[in-house]
Amino acid sequence: MGYNVTQKLIKDHLVKGEMTPGSEIGLKIDQTLTQDATGTMVMLELEAMGIDRAKTEASAQYVDHNLIQEDSKNPDDHLFLESAAKKFGLYFSRPGNGVSHPVHMQRLAKPGQTLLGSDSHTCANGCMGMLAMGAGGIDVAMAIAGEPFYVKMPKVWGVKVTGEFPEWVSAKDAILEMLRRHGVKGGVNHIFEYYGPGLKNLSAMDRHVIANMGAELGATATVFPSDEETRKYMKLQGREDEWKELTVDDGAAYDRHDELDLSSLEPMIAKPSSPGNVVPVREVEGEEIYQSYIGSSANPGYRDFAIASKIVEGRHIANGLSFDLNPTSRQMLIDLSQQGHIANFLQAGARLHQAGCNGCIGMGQAPASGRNSLRTTPRNFPGRSGTKEDSVFLCSPETAAVSALTGKITDPRNAGFDYPKVQELEQPTIDTDLLDAPLPQEEAEQVELVKGPNIASIPKMDELPNDMELPILLKVGDDISTDEILAGGARVLPYRSNLPEISKFTFEIVDDTYYDRAMKQKEDGGHVIVGGTNYGQGSSREHAALAPRYMGLRIAIVKDFARIHWQNLVNFGILPLTFSNEDDFEKIEQGDTLLFKDLRKKIHSKDGFEVELKGKNQTIQVEHALSPRQLEMMEKGGLINWLKDRLDE
Amino acid sequence: MGYNVTQKLIKDHLVKGEMTPGSEIGLKIDQTLTQDATGTMVMLELEAMGIDRAKTEASAQYVDHNLIQEDSKNPDDHLFLESAAKKFGLYFSRPGNGVSHPVHMQRLAKPGQTLLGSDSHTCANGCMGMLAMGAGGIDVAMAIAGEPFYVKMPKVWGVKVTGEFPEWVSAKDAILEMLRRHGVKGGVNHIFEYYGPGLKNLSAMDRHVIANMGAELGATATVFPSDEETRKYMKLQGREDEWKELTVDDGAAYDRHDELDLSSLEPMIAKPSSPGNVVPVREVEGEEIYQSYIGSSANPGYRDFAIASKIVEGRHIANGLSFDLNPTSRQMLIDLSQQGHIANFLQAGARLHQAGCNGCIGMGQAPASGRNSLRTTPRNFPGRSGTKEDSVFLCSPETAAVSALTGKITDPRNAGFDYPKVQELEQPTIDTDLLDAPLPQEEAEQVELVKGPNIASIPKMDELPNDMELPILLKVGDDISTDEILAGGARVLPYRSNLPEISKFTFEIVDDTYYDRAMKQKEDGGHVIVGGTNYGQGSSREHAALAPRYMGLRIAIVKDFARIHWQNLVNFGILPLTFSNEDDFEKIEQGDTLLFKDLRKKIHSKDGFEVELKGKNQTIQVEHALSPRQLEMMEKGGLINWLKDRLDE
Repeated sequence: MGYNVTQKLIKDHLVKGEMTPGSEIGLKIDQTLTQDATGTMVMLELEAMGIDRAKTEASAQYVDHNLIQEDSKNPDDHLFLESAAKKFGLYFSRPGNGVSHPVHMQRLAKPGQTLLGSDSHTCANGCMGMLAMGAGGIDVAMAIAGEPFYVKMPKVWGVKVTGEFPEWVSAKDAILEMLRRHGVKGGVNHIFEYYGPGLKNLSAMDRHVIANMGAELGATATVFPSDEETRKYMKLQGREDEWKELTVDDGAAYDRHDELDLSSLEPMIAKPSSPGNVVPVREVEGEEIYQSYIGSSANPGYRDFAIASKIVEGRHIANGLSFDLNPTSRQMLIDLSQQGHIANFLQAGARLHQAGCNGCIGMGQAPASGRNSLRTTPRNFPGRSGTKEDSVFLCSPETAAVSALTGKITDPRNAGFDYPKVQELEQPTIDTDLLDAPLPQEEAEQVELVKGPNIASIPKMDELPNDMELPILLKVGDDISTDEILAGGARVLPYRSNLPEISKFTFEIVDDTYYDRAMKQKEDGGHVIVGGTNYGQGSSREHAALAPRYMGLRIAIVKDFARIHWQNLVNFGILPLTFSNEDDFEKIEQGDTLLFKDLRKKIHSKDGFEVELKGKNQTIQVEHALSPRQLEMMEKGGLINWLKDRLDE
Repeated sequence: MGYNVTQKLIKDHLVKGEMTPGSEIGLKIDQTLTQDATGTMVMLELEAMGIDRAKTEASAQYVDHNLIQEDSKNPDDHLFLESAAKKFGLYFSRPGNGVSHPVHMQRLAKPGQTLLGSDSHTCANGCMGMLAMGAGGIDVAMAIAGEPFYVKMPKVWGVKVTGEFPEWVSAKDAILEMLRRHGVKGGVNHIFEYYGPGLKNLSAMDRHVIANMGAELGATATVFPSDEETRKYMKLQGREDEWKELTVDDGAAYDRHDELDLSSLEPMIAKPSSPGNVVPVREVEGEEIYQSYIGSSANPGYRDFAIASKIVEGRHIANGLSFDLNPTSRQMLIDLSQQGHIANFLQAGARLHQAGCNGCIGMGQAPASGRNSLRTTPRNFPGRSGTKEDSVFLCSPETAAVSALTGKITDPRNAGFDYPKVQELEQPTIDTDLLDAPLPQEEAEQVELVKGPNIASIPKMDELPNDMELPILLKVGDDISTDEILAGGARVLPYRSNLPEISKFTFEIVDDTYYDRAMKQKEDGGHVIVGGTNYGQGSSREHAALAPRYMGLRIAIVKDFARIHWQNLVNFGILPLTFSNEDDFEKIEQGDTLLFKDLRKKIHSKDGFEVELKGKNQTIQVEHALSPRQLEMMEKGGLINWLKDRLDE
C-alpha cells in the first residue's frame, strides 16, 4: 500500500506522535509566513523570547493588510516589521508588493515542504505540493524559533478531479461547488487532497484558488501534488531548480472520497452572508449590484485579471457601478500593465487600487448601504466588507466582469459575446528584489528594532507562584466571547502592537471598571476570573488572553472553555481550571478571595484539587486538562518564558 | 490704455460694483466645480433652495476626496452626489476619474470664462485663461442657482516671465520661488497674472502647477493668458473649437510688478511646515526621508509623472522608503500605463494608489512618526498628512524622484546621470465618458435624490421673528475658533452630510451640555450666544454656523467677529451683533434672558439699538455691519430662504 501526498508530507515532517487520525502530532515547519496585522505581535513575541535568528529554512514577513495610512500607526508598524525581519533573519515584503499568499507562491513556495502562517488563508500554498496551514501568532513564533507545530492528525479527503472547465467556468466555480456540497464546516479536521486525470487542466494558479478557499471549508489544509503544472509554474518564476515531484503512490488510500468533474460545472455564486451559501449564478441572475470587485488571494492570478480585462475591453461598465480592481502582486501588476490590461480596465471605468488585501479584509472598498456587492474574494461573512448589514456575493472573475457590464448579477454564459481567450504569459516579470532577502547573521545582529510610539515590547511575565491569595475581580455567565473579552474593530485594532494600550479595552463591554480594578490589584499578585460554559467562544485572537495576563489575570475558573481560547490561555500562562462540580459556580461571588496553596505541586494531581474560599469556610473542587508539556509551560509562566529558558540552556 | 487679462475677465463678467480695488464687485459665474467633501452640503443646499436645474453653463460634481471606503458613509455619499448631479443637471465625475482640477482642465475649462469651486485649489484652472476662484459651499450653491459671486475687487500683480527652465528645474520650482519671495500671505487681495516672453516655455500643465499653488500665496486667483500653448493643449484634448485667444493688451498696466526669469531658477523646496518656508534644495540636501510622494493637483500632468518615471527607470528606490504614486486622472493613468511609465514605477518599487486626492488631503499615505516626507503636493501645514507632528517637504517631481533613489533629500542636479527627455504625448487618451454629462431636463426631473442613512436634508429654517425672548445659553471668552464651535477630524467629518447628527458635536469642547440645552430650548424660540473678540476665528467651515442655527441659535452678540465666520452666520440667518460698548460684555451672564422687540424694524437703524435684560432692569447697546442686501437675507432667515423666495416669485 502506498501513500497519498498528504501522508508523504506529514511522514517527512513528523517529529512527535503517530499518524492516527485524531491524535496529536508534532510537525517540523520548514517555512513561515506572517502578515502585518498579526505579524507585529509575532515579532514582539520573538523579541520577548530572545530569539536571535529564525531556525526555519525560509520565513517571510509580508505587509499587505494595513496599507491605509490615515495616521502614523500603520507606517510605524511597517518600519517596525522591516527592522524585525532584518533582525531575525526573515524575508521582508514591503507594502506594495502584494498579498502574502500569491507572493509567497511566486518566490518562496517549495514542493515537499511545510508552511505555517499567521493568516487563515496560508493554506493557499497547498497548491504547490506543500503542507500549508494557518495558525495563531504564537504558534508561528514558535515555528520560527524552530519548535514543532502541534495539530491533531487529520483525516485525508481525496477528491478525484476529472474533465476540464467549459467556457465561462473557472477554478472559483470549482471551489464554490465544493462549498455547495460540504458547507463551511464540512472540512473540519480534514485535509482535502486533489488528484486524478483532471489535474492537468488546472494550472498552479487555478489550484491556488481552490486551496485558498479550503479555509472556508474549515479544512486543516488543502494539498495538491507537485507535478508538471507545478514545474511549469516554477520554471516561469525562474525557480525550476527548486521543483521536485511529489505525487500520490499507486494504491494509496484516502479516509474519505469525493469526485469533481470539471466538465459538469457551471458558474456558481455564494449568496450573502456565508461562503457556504452557494447556488448556480442563474438562480440569482438579474439582481442589481452596486459594486463588482476583482482581486484577493482567492483569485490572485494573471489569468484571473486578464480574462476580466478581455471581457470589459472596449466596453463600459454600467452607470453608477463601482468596479474595483485590487491587484494582488507587484510582479503581476507590472505584467498586467505591460500587456495592456490595466488600460483596458481603466477605459472600461475601473477604479485601480494598490496591490494588497484591501477590501477583502474590510480595508477600504466598503459597499454603499443596502446595495449588493459582487466579489471574487473568499469570504462574505456579515459586516466583513466594512458596511453593516452588507450584502456580498462571491463569484468568479468571469461572473464579476460580465456583471460589471450589465450592472446586474449575470450568468457569464449570457454575456452575448464569445468567451475571450487568455494566453498565459511566456515570460512573466520576475522581481527578485520583490522580497528583501534575510540579512547575513553578522549584519542582522547589528539591527535595532524600530519602534514607533505605538509599539511596545511585551512586558516580562513571571512564573506561576506556588502560593497565591487572589480576589475574584469578575464573575461572568455563559458564552462570553473573545469579542466581549477584547473587542476587535477600528477603535481597538490600531493598538495591536501595544499591549499596555490595548489592555485598556479589556472586558469594557462587560464591566468598564475591570481595567482599573485589575491594574490596581496587579501589584498585589493578580486576580481570578470566574465564568460559565463556553467561555472564550468566537474569534481566535490572542490578545484576549495576552491582555488579561498583562493585567494580572492568573487563573480562570469556568464551567468549560471554548477550545482556541483555552489554548491561548495556556500559551500565555493563565491557568485554565474547570469546576469539578458545576454547582460550585453558585458558591462563589465576585469579590470573594481564593487561596491557592502549594499550587505547583497540586496541578500535577490527576484528580484535580481543592481551593479554599477565604473567610467563608468553604472549598471548591477544580481540575484541568493540561498535558505534561503544557504544565511545564504553565509553571514557567507561559510559552514565551518556556522557550526563553530553552534557548538559555 | 489697454486691459490686462484679469481686467478683461472681470469686465466681461461684472454685474455689480466697480473695478476699483477694494470695493465689492458681483461677478457672473459661468462654471462651477464641487468635490465630494464639500459637495454633499452644496447639493443639500440646492435641495433646500428648491433649485430644479443649474443656471450655469457647466457645473461639475467630482468625487475625489473621500475615496477610502471603510464603511458605507463614503460610498453612500458618492451615490447621493451622482443622483444630485443628475437631478440638478450637473456633470458627474465618478470615483476613480481623478482630481477635480486636472479633470476639469481636460474636459471643461474654457478660456474667457469664470469658474467658482468649493475647493481652495479651484484657482488651478486659471492656467486656461479663466478667472477661477475657490469659495465656500453656499457661495457655489448660489452660483449654480445663477446668482453672482461677490468678492472685493483685487489688485492685479503682473509677473513678467522670461527665459526657460534649466535642466532638472520645472514649474514647481517656479511657484516655490514665488512663495519664497512673497510668503503665504503675500498674495492676499491680489490676482497674480503671468505674462511675457517666457510664457511660450510654459505648457498649459506647467501653468496649472503655478496657478494651483497661487492658493498658497493667499491670492484671490492666478490668471494666465489663453495663447498658442492653451490652444495646443485644447487641441490635444479634442476641444480646439472651444479655444479662444485672450491676451494682455499693449499698454495694459498692473497694480504691482514682479519678474520671474525661468533660466535663473534652481530646484527649490518648502521645508516643514509651511508652503512659504522655501529654500534651495541644496540647503537641506542629505536629510534622510521615509517617503517620496508624487501626484496631487500641484503636479498633475503627464510630464510630471513621466519625468519621474524616466528618472527611476531601471533603478531601485532606497531600502525602507515608501515611494507613493497618486495618479491624478483616469485619462492620464491610461496614458502612463500604455507608455510603460507605470511598469517603470512599479519595477523601481513604487506603491501605486487610486486616482484621486489621497494623501494630499490626509486620506491615506500618512508618513511614519518622526520621519521626513518629501511630496509634490501643494501644502505641508502641520498634521495635514494625517501624522501628528509630521515633517513634510514640498518639491518638484524631479527632486522627489531622485531623492527616492538615494533615500535622502537630493538636489536632482546631483543625480549622477543625464536629465531624461520626456516627449509630450502626440495623442493623449481622451475619455469623453469620463464625466457623465448632464441629463436632459425631462429626464432630470424624474430623478430622486438617493440618500443613504447618513444623509439628511437641511431642515426648513424660519424667518427672523420680530419679537423674541431668548436666554443666553452660552457665554464664552475671546478667540473662540470654529474648531471649538464644531471640530473637524475623522470623528466629526463623516457626518458632514447629516446636519442633525453633526450638530451633536457643537461646542462640545467648550461645554458638553450645550447641545442638550439648546435642543430643549429650540421649541421655545431658540437662544443667544455671547462672546468676546475674534469670535469664530480659524477654519472657514460652514457647519460651524449651520449646526448652531439648526439648534436654535438666533443671535450672536460678541465684541468682534472673525471675518469668514461672520459671513457664514449671515448666510445662515444668525444675526451677528456687536457690543456698542465692550464693557456691556461684563453686564450679562450665561442664563440671562434678552428681550428683542420690534427687531425687524430696529435692525434697519444705522446707530444700532437697545436690548433689554429681562428682570435686571438693564439694557445693552448693540450694532451690526450688515448691508441692505444682507439685511433682506437676514429677515428671510438666511440665504437659502432668500433664494427660495426669489425662485418662487
